[in-house]
Amino acid sequence: MTEKAGKVPEQTTSQAGRHRPGPERREAYRVFRRLGTRWMDNDAYGHANNAAYFSWFDTAVNAWLIEQGLLDVEAGQTIGLVVENHCNYFASVGFPQDIDVGLRVGHVGSSSVHYEIGIFALLAQTAAAQGHLVHVYVDRDTRRPVSLPPALRAATLALHAPASA
Amino acid sequence: MTEKAGKVPEQTTSQAGRHRPGPERREAYRVFRRLGTRWMDNDAYGHANNAAYFSWFDTAVNAWLIEQGLLDVEAGQTIGLVVENHCNYFASVGFPQDIDVGLRVGHVGSSSVHYEIGIFALLAQTAAAQGHLVHVYVDRDTRRPVSLPPALRAATLALHAPASA
Amino acid sequence: MTEKAGKVPEQTTSQAGRHRPGPERREAYRVFRRLGTRWMDNDAYGHANNAAYFSWFDTAVNAWLIEQGLLDVEAGQTIGLVVENHCNYFASVGFPQDIDVGLRVGHVGSSSVHYEIGIFALLAQTAAAQGHLVHVYVDRDTRRPVSLPPALRAATLALHAPASA
Amino acid sequence: MTEKAGKVPEQTTSQAGRHRPGPERREAYRVFRRLGTRWMDNDAYGHANNAAYFSWFDTAVNAWLIEQGLLDVEAGQTIGLVVENHCNYFASVGFPQDIDVGLRVGHVGSSSVHYEIGIFALLAQTAAAQGHLVHVYVDRDTRRPVSLPPALRAATLALHAPASA
Repeated sequence: MTEKAGKVPEQTTSQAGRHRPGPERREAYRVFRRLGTRWMDNDAYGHANNAAYFSWFDTAVNAWLIEQGLLDVEAGQTIGLVVENHCNYFASVGFPQDIDVGLRVGHVGSSSVHYEIGIFALLAQTAAAQGHLVHVYVDRDTRRPVSLPPALRAATLALHAPASA
Repeated sequence: MTEKAGKVPEQTTSQAGRHRPGPERREAYRVFRRLGTRWMDNDAYGHANNAAYFSWFDTAVNAWLIEQGLLDVEAGQTIGLVVENHCNYFASVGFPQDIDVGLRVGHVGSSSVHYEIGIFALLAQTAAAQGHLVHVYVDRDTRRPVSLPPALRAATLALHAPASA
Repeated sequence: MTEKAGKVPEQTTSQAGRHRPGPERREAYRVFRRLGTRWMDNDAYGHANNAAYFSWFDTAVNAWLIEQGLLDVEAGQTIGLVVENHCNYFASVGFPQDIDVGLRVGHVGSSSVHYEIGIFALLAQTAAAQGHLVHVYVDRDTRRPVSLPPALRAATLALHAPASA
Repeated sequence: MTEKAGKVPEQTTSQAGRHRPGPERREAYRVFRRLGTRWMDNDAYGHANNAAYFSWFDTAVNAWLIEQGLLDVEAGQTIGLVVENHCNYFASVGFPQDIDVGLRVGHVGSSSVHYEIGIFALLAQTAAAQGHLVHVYVDRDTRRPVSLPPALRAATLALHAPASA
């Protein structure tokens, strides 16, 4: 229900015996976008609600696509639909903070792109949260997958992997 | 950015060479809660935005906890914080549909619970989307993990695994 | 930023020297719709945020229109756009409460309808909040006002004024 | 349900015989804050939903209060609760646009402040939407109105009226 977690993840990983990644550093991402938070993002526990993070993911990915000329929400024939998303929360952020959203591409398929996203407090070097979303690109009318348009393929491949990798 | 996917997942799984689960049936869940959708849930592509699904997850889990007497949002000393969540989208739902949210518990740790959630259209037997959220239960003031209160442990263990499993 | 107000309105009315209406009773509304609240509706002060109320207004009005066969969001040529809305808050509501949304029509213009809306806690006879929204009906493509379709005019006129008026 | 209105307001004013204000210019506001929009702000008609505007109102007012040192959401004893809000919509805005939110104070009561707000597209001189919200300042615990703290009174009076008035 909320994302405040402090040093919680380490404990829960060992308890659960499930792999949970630790927070990555800014160097792991290729491009950044600064977003504002909103009063309404915060929930009854005083920090941004988990659903707000996914609204930031969407906003960062789609704004990047639009700026690159790769997505025309109103008129483009190819649109990106989310078929999977995920987030791990390491520390809380919330209104009135601004945040930096880091973006890279983890996999480019024939009709899908796996975007990897980190949420950073402004002065933090490690992520407060990180996750991914998978877009499948489909025809607007049929909603059937299409081959990635060449410009989209090139631009997402160029965002592949961290700069340091 | 949205969750409309039709038969998309099958294709993307094979393309990406990554495991993506197929939709489960209602029998895989232990309790259900009917939720309404809202005009605002739908995005520019005409179906509920992915962030809306996570607001449904939160709502279903917390409402269940409150009804069981296991969570007192205003005054309880133990609160649940989301440290991870995930969703796979198989088919679109959206306003003005109602939805059924199926819930089960996949893992009960010493201070965490892994809730598994399916989103169903009212007449559908297979999930439109499914995912999970992991709560770590912490002290409200210190925000440090605490051992699951016995009543919470018992109630979540009772929701363990699908009825048919 | 939030809607919790207790008996606040009386004081503020006299202070401000501005007219602020008192809460109406259920009898003042013609039809009711029960809506669920969501975890995310509540803000840092523990009650539903004011923006959530407007999402309930939209949901109640559009769901009623769709049920009456008066609005086809995907394909209809006439759509309703909000040109004005307003809300006064008298008492707080919030997750996990359900709410009853009362609806009546205050004015039917040549291309507009003024919907009046009350938000009620389930056992309350007086409104926790009340307000209005004004729809102008426009052509989907040109976004220019159109004369109200006859069925819409008839249905909204039938919702005119409180039952007791 | 949405805010797209084009030149609609003029027509509806005359039809309804009700006063509806025309859009104001930037000069009518005292301070401005630039906000980003989000993918999720846009609804099925492709522009920001009306409820999103109220989340911008809240964000602008509360961010200003926090920056002025007048509101401490976590620990302050005096908090501001919305008892009334209102918006008129003149033209649509939406993701991926940024917006400028203009703010001034229209009335300062003994325990309340009437904030007046304009929403502007970045290059526009006239408002896309304008409205107000009324805060009553209350004691966090009793939720009873309190006299405006002197610093809050001074700061809001300094924002009184448009610069040109």
